Amino acid sequence: MPLFMDVHHKVDGLTAEAVAGAHQRDLEVQSKYGVNYRQYWFDENSGKVFCLVEAPDADTATRVHREAHGLEADELVPVQEGH
Amino acid sequence: MPLFMDVHHKVDGLTAEAVAGAHQRDLEVQSKYGVNYRQYWFDENSGKVFCLVEAPDADTATRVHREAHGLEADELVPVQEGH
Repeated sequence: MPLFMDVHHKVDGLTAEAVAGAHQRDLEVQSKYGVNYRQYWFDENSGKVFCLVEAPDADTATRVHREAHGLEADELVPVQEGH
Repeated sequence: MPLFMDVHHKVDGLTAEAVAGAHQRDLEVQSKYGVNYRQYWFDENSGKVFCLVEAPDADTATRVHREAHGLEADELVPVQEGH
């Protein structure tokens, strides 16, 4: 399945707890769309978030974020994974 | 050890082979600096690269890239890892 890195440039008021809650919502919503939000990294100071996600296509990945918590990524980059 | 996501916005002429070679050079150089380039993701079309790296500090992570292949990241974001 295609892999994407999404980037949120600046989520206002980001905390570890808030991002964990949003990710949990992604996990709840994603299965009906065949999406897998695998992992994420974030910076509380800058509000930056990176999500690594497997999805049939970019639009479907975005749809999960939108339905789960409404915070859509600013960028969604199709990526290959290095080993 | 602190964790960072570095972002290269556009590496000219990026190929899977070139980025694998650059990453291999990071692995050869990093140990003397106590750095661990854990993983990377890239997009051949846009030339974008994300590297996940453990390092004592941002400057030391950058130093490894500089010495290994000269391609310094455009951004180096201190991150926490979500679970």
